[in-house]
Amino acid sequence: MNGAESLVRTLSAGGVEVCFANPGTSEMQFVDALDRTRLIRCVLGLFEGVVTGAADGYARMAGKPAVTLLHLAPGLANASANLHNARKARTPMVNLVGDHALRHQAYDAPLTADVEGAALPFSDFVRVTRSAAEIGADGAETLAAAMSAPGKVATLIAPSDTGWDEGGVVAEPRRPQGPAPIEPAALDAAVAALGHGKETLILAGGSVLEQPELTSLLLGIAEKTGCTIAVPPANRRLERGAGRANFAKVPFAVDLAVEMLKGFRHAILIEARQPVAFFAYPGKPSVLLPDECARLTLADLHDDGPEAVRALADRVGAKPATPVDAPRPIRPQRVPIDYRSLEMAIAAALPEDVIVMDEGLTAGRGIYDATAGAPPMSWIAITGGSIGIGPPLATGAAIACPDRPVVALQADGSAMYTIQGLWTQARENLNVTTVIFANGTYELLKQELVRVGANPGRSALDMLEINRPALDFVSIAKGMGVPGRRVEDAATLCQAIRDAVKEPGPKLIEAIID
Amino acid sequence: MNGAESLVRTLSAGGVEVCFANPGTSEMQFVDALDRTRLIRCVLGLFEGVVTGAADGYARMAGKPAVTLLHLAPGLANASANLHNARKARTPMVNLVGDHALRHQAYDAPLTADVEGAALPFSDFVRVTRSAAEIGADGAETLAAAMSAPGKVATLIAPSDTGWDEGGVVAEPRRPQGPAPIEPAALDAAVAALGHGKETLILAGGSVLEQPELTSLLLGIAEKTGCTIAVPPANRRLERGAGRANFAKVPFAVDLAVEMLKGFRHAILIEARQPVAFFAYPGKPSVLLPDECARLTLADLHDDGPEAVRALADRVGAKPATPVDAPRPIRPQRVPIDYRSLEMAIAAALPEDVIVMDEGLTAGRGIYDATAGAPPMSWIAITGGSIGIGPPLATGAAIACPDRPVVALQADGSAMYTIQGLWTQARENLNVTTVIFANGTYELLKQELVRVGANPGRSALDMLEINRPALDFVSIAKGMGVPGRRVEDAATLCQAIRDAVKEPGPKLIEAIID
Repeated sequence: MNGAESLVRTLSAGGVEVCFANPGTSEMQFVDALDRTRLIRCVLGLFEGVVTGAADGYARMAGKPAVTLLHLAPGLANASANLHNARKARTPMVNLVGDHALRHQAYDAPLTADVEGAALPFSDFVRVTRSAAEIGADGAETLAAAMSAPGKVATLIAPSDTGWDEGGVVAEPRRPQGPAPIEPAALDAAVAALGHGKETLILAGGSVLEQPELTSLLLGIAEKTGCTIAVPPANRRLERGAGRANFAKVPFAVDLAVEMLKGFRHAILIEARQPVAFFAYPGKPSVLLPDECARLTLADLHDDGPEAVRALADRVGAKPATPVDAPRPIRPQRVPIDYRSLEMAIAAALPEDVIVMDEGLTAGRGIYDATAGAPPMSWIAITGGSIGIGPPLATGAAIACPDRPVVALQADGSAMYTIQGLWTQARENLNVTTVIFANGTYELLKQELVRVGANPGRSALDMLEINRPALDFVSIAKGMGVPGRRVEDAATLCQAIRDAVKEPGPKLIEAIID
Repeated sequence: MNGAESLVRTLSAGGVEVCFANPGTSEMQFVDALDRTRLIRCVLGLFEGVVTGAADGYARMAGKPAVTLLHLAPGLANASANLHNARKARTPMVNLVGDHALRHQAYDAPLTADVEGAALPFSDFVRVTRSAAEIGADGAETLAAAMSAPGKVATLIAPSDTGWDEGGVVAEPRRPQGPAPIEPAALDAAVAALGHGKETLILAGGSVLEQPELTSLLLGIAEKTGCTIAVPPANRRLERGAGRANFAKVPFAVDLAVEMLKGFRHAILIEARQPVAFFAYPGKPSVLLPDECARLTLADLHDDGPEAVRALADRVGAKPATPVDAPRPIRPQRVPIDYRSLEMAIAAALPEDVIVMDEGLTAGRGIYDATAGAPPMSWIAITGGSIGIGPPLATGAAIACPDRPVVALQADGSAMYTIQGLWTQARENLNVTTVIFANGTYELLKQELVRVGANPGRSALDMLEINRPALDFVSIAKGMGVPGRRVEDAATLCQAIRDAVKEPGPKLIEAIID
């Protein structure tokens, strides 16, 4: 057995079922091994950012890693923006990156570059394998690292001869490092902090938000103690909607976040770090909690958040609480699409058990709140602030959950970074409905330009307009095999989404923002 | 004056005229300074790989660097595949990468990552500036590094407060490090090697190929001594076509390259390194020259290649030679487009003084030879093997040379990595005619799969097909504001290119390969 086959068999034995791939010459032996063994489903992306964003979406919904197949340092670089997002989401992911054969690395071949150096800034774990005999064991360790709490981006660099040489050995799965138990002293301190009632904030993130029974318990703790529950601005996955807890997010805008947090004197952190500003701005703080607020880490990112929630509920005598349901969304009238009618249209269109992918950014900022009363849903969003996760994240989620519809809330500027993801949706006939929020501008950046103190002139604003020429997403989607339509009023938008989710296969709806 | 303005004024004083940009919040103070000073033309890209590929194309044709404006580590990562290509081309380029404000870097903000670590594998020079007072001087040093022989990718990382703080100081331009003089002993050895006549190869690259008077001198040396002249497989820029020397390229395929080089016993290297295989393959060599061939570096990459050619000509008494013109290309008949009729159609369509961008890969491999008799042209090609340089490289070349038509020879699979470059062509109304070689497959990889010893099955081959669904490049181009047409015979293709180059603005022609 060659090294490539031993690696494929090792990953399969460890539970890996899907490979998102954009391979090159130095990975052909892995393509060959995947083909011969038929153990792992291969999904092709036309660009590496699609591959890693899809692996992220897959893992968020499947609860386990996919493997990506990437080509040398430049392929890894193309993949890295969405590795960054995955790292910040604490998503488990295994990247298999080919490198030149060991004997070839001494030469300055055109594609020679420092693959390990390129991997380090965007991976939590990097391993370079050295032989066909070792690649199986290295693969098992990389997979275990990926599955370690709270979920890690783990990269295995495989010189091509380690794949094609004979002598491969299939390795047993390694046990990943589970979450660390919480400290009794931290629990005591958290219980004491909850004694301060409404002066106390619980900021809960990570795995806690993925389990409705835990969010119900958090709600019970809030009811029992008078504390407030909030979640970080971006999260790997939220289970929310009607009948489930819907917690407020710490806002993106610094001023709004400071306003929200100013009254708290105790902050209990569960699988979360203290909230900080997305960016620094002249004259604005980096830290969002007031100085006089005591920070208390009950569970750090790699600790056992579910245990923390259960222990806390137990100590204060809280039971799971049933949320007061938010009002059921109302369908909008046949009015132009502004931010408000957009929210209404989306909220009223979401079907039961939908997966919502949120890269709506400026135009979509109100949709999270507006959908609290929509049917139960999974909510996955951009986490690391690196725009261009949307089309692939939706793609991967649909691969993981073939029986659930995916609605992708997609800002127009961001869509263009990984628009190639539409092609994979068509190829795999995935039930993804992409709603493009077409405002023809990097609206977010226009606001940011003012926040850094600029008094922008015409040419600066022109740099942030993307409507000259106008992007025609219906044509772009058609070019990649995805049928699309353009809508200009909120009622039609709502109905178009309802229609699209009922049909198999991907659709794109370009919502023209007024 | 704030730091951002001091940097813009410093770069402008150093000769920088164009900024290719895809900024984010941490670069808004640079957008503001570019806007207020109006010293540097700003060109927007919708994706960072477009930005750096365009800066590469610009510098190859303008002979001086552009500056790129990039957003944090993920933006830099998206830019890096084409930085890799630029490095291998030895293209001068300055990258300005924003980072979080220094005071904000301690926090784990969503976009916090190791920007310097991400820059190092893809830059020849990296500088992190520390204050508004220093950013001007750091910018001048970064620019000088970029312009040092033979041309370098130089990256300046600027925390946002170094841009918005007051106290900026405009710096005088620094003198770049020029090429090193050649060694008299190496010249003596090269003259001696030329005494072996047809046993001797001159492999010339870099700046030597950009000056017709030098390629004529090389031709004179060959005529005088009986040696052979060849060029590396990929080069920053070649001045070639009718009336100019057209040297054979060392082939991509290992077997063909070994065959071409097997008879040589002396290899004189001028701004080139010994040719090596693009990839390693089982049972094939990495080194392409025979073992018994003596390697003689007359001018290394950073040495003075033009001086080397002139000195060599002087020593052997060679004069500039007039090339025997290759036959004038003949227009193809109305036949299906195969590789042969494709070559004919392109060669017969090229207008006077065209810039040819070559990312044609498998389908386009014969076009270089077929165009030797076409009118004089500049030829710029993918250098580092990282596919996805085409649309941006053509874009940048057109920005540098607004009065010259650009014909982009573009493989379909590669086109999809940076297809967003079409939008910038439309926005800037550039005379770029993109010819998509639509064979619906990663044809190159199919050949490579067999070369690594695989006997590929259906699912492996399916991973390398990109025609399910078929890409419709005419629709994709339309979506980005570029008019397109689809052609299925060689005569129509030839005429379509002739028509397109005569009109202003970009066009796309999808050539369906039979």
